[in-house]
Amino acid sequence: MNQQYPSALLEKAVGEFAKLPGIGRKTALRLVLHLLRQDVSAVEAFGRSVVTLKREVKYCEVCHNISDTDVCQICADPRRDASVVCVVENIRDVMAVEATQQFRGLYHVLGGVISPMDGIGPSDLEIAGLVRRVADGGVREVILALSTTMEGDTTNFYIYRKLEKMDVKLTVIARGISIGDELEYADEVTLGRSIVNRTVFNGTA
Amino acid sequence: MNQQYPSALLEKAVGEFAKLPGIGRKTALRLVLHLLRQDVSAVEAFGRSVVTLKREVKYCEVCHNISDTDVCQICADPRRDASVVCVVENIRDVMAVEATQQFRGLYHVLGGVISPMDGIGPSDLEIAGLVRRVADGGVREVILALSTTMEGDTTNFYIYRKLEKMDVKLTVIARGISIGDELEYADEVTLGRSIVNRTVFNGTA
Repeated sequence: MNQQYPSALLEKAVGEFAKLPGIGRKTALRLVLHLLRQDVSAVEAFGRSVVTLKREVKYCEVCHNISDTDVCQICADPRRDASVVCVVENIRDVMAVEATQQFRGLYHVLGGVISPMDGIGPSDLEIAGLVRRVADGGVREVILALSTTMEGDTTNFYIYRKLEKMDVKLTVIARGISIGDELEYADEVTLGRSIVNRTVFNGTA
Repeated sequence: MNQQYPSALLEKAVGEFAKLPGIGRKTALRLVLHLLRQDVSAVEAFGRSVVTLKREVKYCEVCHNISDTDVCQICADPRRDASVVCVVENIRDVMAVEATQQFRGLYHVLGGVISPMDGIGPSDLEIAGLVRRVADGGVREVILALSTTMEGDTTNFYIYRKLEKMDVKLTVIARGISIGDELEYADEVTLGRSIVNRTVFNGTA
C-alpha cells in the first residue's frame, strides 16, 4: 500500500521508528499515532529517556558491560568471584546468564564476535582488554560463552591462541540437547557432541 | 525470564518503549540497544521527531485530519469534490481510503466510534462538527465508512438520526466478500449481506 502521509511531521516520526529493527512502516505509524494520543509530558518523557541513555550511560572499565557508574554493579560486588571471567558477546548475554542465577563470577563483554564478512576483526572487539585482565593476574578461569556459530568458534579459537601460554584455565559452555527437546529433532552435530561430551549420571538429572 | 538491568537509565528507556502497544520488554530492550549503537545525533533525531510531532502537529479545522497547516492538503485541494464527505474513525482510515485512489471527495475524521463500554459518547467525537458541515450547505452526500462492528453500526445510526431531516444523501460502504476470499470461509452474516446487496454483473468484475 502506497501511503500518502497527511503531515510531514508525521512522516518524519514514522520514518524514524521504521529505522528500528523489525519495525515496518505500518507498525511505525501505529506506534507514532499511539504516542500522539498521549500527553505532551508523556511523549517528552519517552523522547528524553533514550537521549539521556545515549548521552549519560557508561561502559564498565573492567568488563565493558553497560553501567551507570565507572565500574559496574557486578564488578564492584565483593561477594562475586573475581577469579572466574565469563566472556560474552553483548549486554543481553550478560542479562541472560545473570537470569539463570547459576554464575557468581565476573563478565567480559566483547562487543561482538570476529566476522570478516561484516568487517569485524579482533581489534574491533574488547579482546586486548581480556588478555590484559588475565595478564594482570587473579583470573583462574575464563569461560567462553559465545554463540555456537562459525564466527563464535573463530573468536573462541582466537582467544585460545592469545591465552594458551598464560596460567589460566580456558573452558567453553556445554553444547548438547536442550532441556525439553526430543532427540529425533536435534541436529546431528549437536547430538554427536552431546554423546562425545556425555557426563557421569549419578541417578539425578 | 526475570531480567536484572545493569543500568537504571537502560531500564527507564526500556520501560518507556514497553509502554508502546504490542512491544514487550524483550523487544523494547532490543530496540533500545539498537538505538544505543547509533550516533548521538541519530538518537537525538529519533527522540526529537516524536516530541516535535506532538508539539507542532495540527488538526484540520474542516475535517480534523492530522495536518501541518490549519486546513489540511486534502480539504485545501480545489480539484477535490467538496460535495461528498467520507466519515471515518481515524487518520489511518483516511490514509487507507486515499491509498485506494478511488475517492476524490473530502473526509470527516470522527476520532473514534460510540462505545459506552469505553466511556466514549457522541460528545467525545466530532459528530457536531459533521452536522454543522452539512447544515452549512454544499454537501450532497455523506458516506459512512466506519468499522463493521456493533460500535460502528451504533455510530452510523446516531449520525443517521442527526442527518435524516437534512437535505443530504447518506450512504454506507459496501459490505461483502473480500476480493480473493473463498466463499466457504466467509462468515454467514457477510455472505448473507453480499447476496442481499448483489450488484448487476455486466460481464466484467
